[in-house]
Amino acid sequence: MSGRKLTRDDLRNAAEKYKNWGKWGADDEIGTLNYTQPDDIVAAARLVKKGKVISLALNFDQHGPQGAKSKYPAMGRINPLHVMLRTGTDAYSGVLDQRGIRAADDIVVMPLQCGTQWDGLGHVFYESSMWNGYDCREVTSAGAQKCGIEKTKQKMVGRGVFLDVARALGKDVLDDGYAITGADLDRTAASCGVKVKRGDFVVVRTGQMEAKLKAGSWDGYPQIAALASDTWGCEVRPNESEPGINQPWHWITIPIMGLTMGEIFYVADLATDCAEDRVYEFLFVAPAIPITGAVGSPTNPLAIK
Amino acid sequence: MSGRKLTRDDLRNAAEKYKNWGKWGADDEIGTLNYTQPDDIVAAARLVKKGKVISLALNFDQHGPQGAKSKYPAMGRINPLHVMLRTGTDAYSGVLDQRGIRAADDIVVMPLQCGTQWDGLGHVFYESSMWNGYDCREVTSAGAQKCGIEKTKQKMVGRGVFLDVARALGKDVLDDGYAITGADLDRTAASCGVKVKRGDFVVVRTGQMEAKLKAGSWDGYPQIAALASDTWGCEVRPNESEPGINQPWHWITIPIMGLTMGEIFYVADLATDCAEDRVYEFLFVAPAIPITGAVGSPTNPLAIK
Amino acid sequence: MSGRKLTRDDLRNAAEKYKNWGKWGADDEIGTLNYTQPDDIVAAARLVKKGKVISLALNFDQHGPQGAKSKYPAMGRINPLHVMLRTGTDAYSGVLDQRGIRAADDIVVMPLQCGTQWDGLGHVFYESSMWNGYDCREVTSAGAQKCGIEKTKQKMVGRGVFLDVARALGKDVLDDGYAITGADLDRTAASCGVKVKRGDFVVVRTGQMEAKLKAGSWDGYPQIAALASDTWGCEVRPNESEPGINQPWHWITIPIMGLTMGEIFYVADLATDCAEDRVYEFLFVAPAIPITGAVGSPTNPLAIK
Amino acid sequence: MSGRKLTRDDLRNAAEKYKNWGKWGADDEIGTLNYTQPDDIVAAARLVKKGKVISLALNFDQHGPQGAKSKYPAMGRINPLHVMLRTGTDAYSGVLDQRGIRAADDIVVMPLQCGTQWDGLGHVFYESSMWNGYDCREVTSAGAQKCGIEKTKQKMVGRGVFLDVARALGKDVLDDGYAITGADLDRTAASCGVKVKRGDFVVVRTGQMEAKLKAGSWDGYPQIAALASDTWGCEVRPNESEPGINQPWHWITIPIMGLTMGEIFYVADLATDCAEDRVYEFLFVAPAIPITGAVGSPTNPLAIK
Repeated sequence: MSGRKLTRDDLRNAAEKYKNWGKWGADDEIGTLNYTQPDDIVAAARLVKKGKVISLALNFDQHGPQGAKSKYPAMGRINPLHVMLRTGTDAYSGVLDQRGIRAADDIVVMPLQCGTQWDGLGHVFYESSMWNGYDCREVTSAGAQKCGIEKTKQKMVGRGVFLDVARALGKDVLDDGYAITGADLDRTAASCGVKVKRGDFVVVRTGQMEAKLKAGSWDGYPQIAALASDTWGCEVRPNESEPGINQPWHWITIPIMGLTMGEIFYVADLATDCAEDRVYEFLFVAPAIPITGAVGSPTNPLAIK
Repeated sequence: MSGRKLTRDDLRNAAEKYKNWGKWGADDEIGTLNYTQPDDIVAAARLVKKGKVISLALNFDQHGPQGAKSKYPAMGRINPLHVMLRTGTDAYSGVLDQRGIRAADDIVVMPLQCGTQWDGLGHVFYESSMWNGYDCREVTSAGAQKCGIEKTKQKMVGRGVFLDVARALGKDVLDDGYAITGADLDRTAASCGVKVKRGDFVVVRTGQMEAKLKAGSWDGYPQIAALASDTWGCEVRPNESEPGINQPWHWITIPIMGLTMGEIFYVADLATDCAEDRVYEFLFVAPAIPITGAVGSPTNPLAIK
Repeated sequence: MSGRKLTRDDLRNAAEKYKNWGKWGADDEIGTLNYTQPDDIVAAARLVKKGKVISLALNFDQHGPQGAKSKYPAMGRINPLHVMLRTGTDAYSGVLDQRGIRAADDIVVMPLQCGTQWDGLGHVFYESSMWNGYDCREVTSAGAQKCGIEKTKQKMVGRGVFLDVARALGKDVLDDGYAITGADLDRTAASCGVKVKRGDFVVVRTGQMEAKLKAGSWDGYPQIAALASDTWGCEVRPNESEPGINQPWHWITIPIMGLTMGEIFYVADLATDCAEDRVYEFLFVAPAIPITGAVGSPTNPLAIK
Repeated sequence: MSGRKLTRDDLRNAAEKYKNWGKWGADDEIGTLNYTQPDDIVAAARLVKKGKVISLALNFDQHGPQGAKSKYPAMGRINPLHVMLRTGTDAYSGVLDQRGIRAADDIVVMPLQCGTQWDGLGHVFYESSMWNGYDCREVTSAGAQKCGIEKTKQKMVGRGVFLDVARALGKDVLDDGYAITGADLDRTAASCGVKVKRGDFVVVRTGQMEAKLKAGSWDGYPQIAALASDTWGCEVRPNESEPGINQPWHWITIPIMGLTMGEIFYVADLATDCAEDRVYEFLFVAPAIPITGAVGSPTNPLAIK
């Protein structure tokens, strides 16, 4: 990394280079999830050999990653607020018996991107466009009229590939600000004995990513279905970009490539398991909760080996 | 059905008969989900032959099943309230540019049992006990200290079996108040060419169920992992029980048997597909969102064939 | 009312005629609330003679005016959802004692205009402008950067005048669609023995209002501080306007005149009291809850006589 | 203060001494608010001489007093979460025009005791009792069936008295842990030239209070209507009490005396004004938002001088 700041021109060039608009028709709302075909799903299911299920979700509670007071008013990314509507203590106190059943019930107030989650294709815009060239004004206070997360309802099943970059580079955790290169990913895949193929769901273990190099590095992997990692945004922080450009990787991946991204995945258990059995591929199932018009969704992603 | 009202004595007898407390140790918090073993998961994955994914979730939005004003104050089972934290119209208006990224974000206020969902084992109590004999006071305003839905995080994967009772009985929909008998289920399984086995996830298509007969009828199927249907509570309504007893099936299944139950599953697409290919078994993956201490969870259940 | 539909030209003319922009300086954010001066408050306090306090608020609960499923997705105007965070049943069950205090606590999910409430000046726009000519883009997903309801924090105190139009016209309730005329208001004021003065808070009892005539009718009363009524929007429904124009009165009053409006006021008790003592003026105190950046606020308005 | 820890016996004795149960009948739900009589309200209104309104509310926003992650799961006292349902940016983007009106709307998720607020009489229990001897099980997940804050709807108006203890003691702020004595209050009242009378609303400026001494000190003032201060709980922190007793002042005031308490009042502006004009009494109006069954309420308390 030369230290050169990423500019708007760089982004414009990357956008031209990686643009997938129209690739699956003018009406498409799911982007690279189209890459996964029925055969891929059948093949992925064949990877289940131990009958072991590994969850990649953090628990959703007040210990989640959100928290500090923000300088941005009303951004509202709090940890989930889980509140009971009826309780066992109500039951014990006898106050539910008028209903003829003793039951507890609950409600959650939950930003959709507060924990382990999918970014939907309505989440990020490039200038005034969203995925496939839709006008960003399709995402109003009434929700995403295009590319809502509910459109992925029958997707998010395929072959998962785990790239443990940190381990491959001999680190516990990548240094803050370390920008993964294409060579790093190649080396990781090689050391894990896997090849990333069209339609795969790639889960990366690292702290950081970097937009420009990353965009560069994906020349060999452009046809994955989705990308997920153990970071806030699959992106190196702080960003190496000009003032006025924040999280440049997002500018390209979501609205331009149509790449659904998974964030805040918890991969420690998966990493341990893969290190033990040396198998870095599995059946990946991570259904979004189909909240109509949502631009993201919590998920409990499962690696089934 | 004789029309005799189900009494508390009937429930007490059923509780004694079907009680699984202690079966998986005094510390168990997941009940019949224990039935599904690694071999079952491997075998279930082998059922994936077409590479087709069918979602059993209703979309989560204001058109959901909740709605009418309730006579119970503050019960709070509303349809999900999906609200934007940032929008594409903000982006278009230029008011996000100070952050260097144009992105939308959202939040949901969602009762955990407002749509397609799992009832956790903390959801229903038998007198002052919950599953495995835990004191119901473990479910406080701070959530379920035992049997929270997050305990199922690595579960909810196995062989799915679809019992299309309505179709087997030659109906579009079972009549309101029709109580499915054990014979109905046997006949359905036979007509579908499937056998329910230990550790299966059974999805029933019907409008109605009935507690007493049901409890009776499950003598042959007690070892399923979970049961789900296209109803509010896998239970005949109105209930055929004495005053003061409401949803008696729940009294037994959840706290006594430890049976996780799926409700408001959308099975129309699955029914169509099964009718076409005559295959009523599949890989079933329906991860709960692991909200710590929750007594239920929305889910997007997938039948993968 | 001739039955002629109100047109955009009519609105444009009304906007020009009643525009108060700049009247209290370019930085003003409270509009006609400026009319109420300290002397008015002192005089209003002198109206307190019986020591009687009459609330003009509906209780905030599930029996409130919101409710039917809307055809507008995610509009989100539900009745308040009041949920407990801790309860007396928790206390009784002993589960709070670890904290050394037995207390209940609660939370509300409440659209700010779901019940008795003030419309703030950020609530309605005229084309792309809000009160005093501010750009409507000042009201972003982060809230109202101008004219937030918190700016009224020390206002909402003054002389209240109650105009019981229904009673003055000899009706229990005005017919649906009946448009109050200026003459109706004059007649009401006369029959009540009150004169509306500069800086007053006028509370109108009626079912309906009408924009055009109303705008016309207020030539004699333009200097009130605020207007409140027992209706959804102080406006006749259905509106008598061209397609594409909804609630035209709001187009003028809030963004153009800077008139803070009170809605869904409960005036039955006040009406009874005024009919008995024949006193239609009182000290009016109706503080908004100063939620930063809000465009409305629930309130418990008090008429103190 | 001798440093002796407050014991359960001390509390039991205080409870016996100050118990007001039954004083206003067996059905009473508002306690000491009964002290304020119509004549008091008339007299209080006579105190309005400058026509000045001073708000005692903090703005309700993310900068409020809540915040740090709590070790108590799901306690849920967050700062208010204010979210827009429609915005000016929607208006600008033209996406609202189908409705014929350009308007913004908003919603709040707000713990009722997150900011400037009243503690209702359902908020704190003494053992298993609430105010007037009601069973604490009256406060269920469905809200307070007795003593809900809505019962105070026509109250919260009377003479306000401001006791600026810090100033009277020559301090900017009382030291953390300083326990105000009865003598301190007497001295403050004397230096402010006010006498606290039956039915008054007393606003105290200090950082701290102390339960036992306080309870002791109120022998001369037991008949106030309500007490408010600029603290979390009108109580010295850390509490000087045995393990297992937290906020002992609350144990007595709310359930035993029936004293509605105001917390987190912002009194800086009032302090400045009173120091200038040397007038420490005023018309006090602080209506609660009548949320049915609530055990507290945000309020915008007004001192009108």
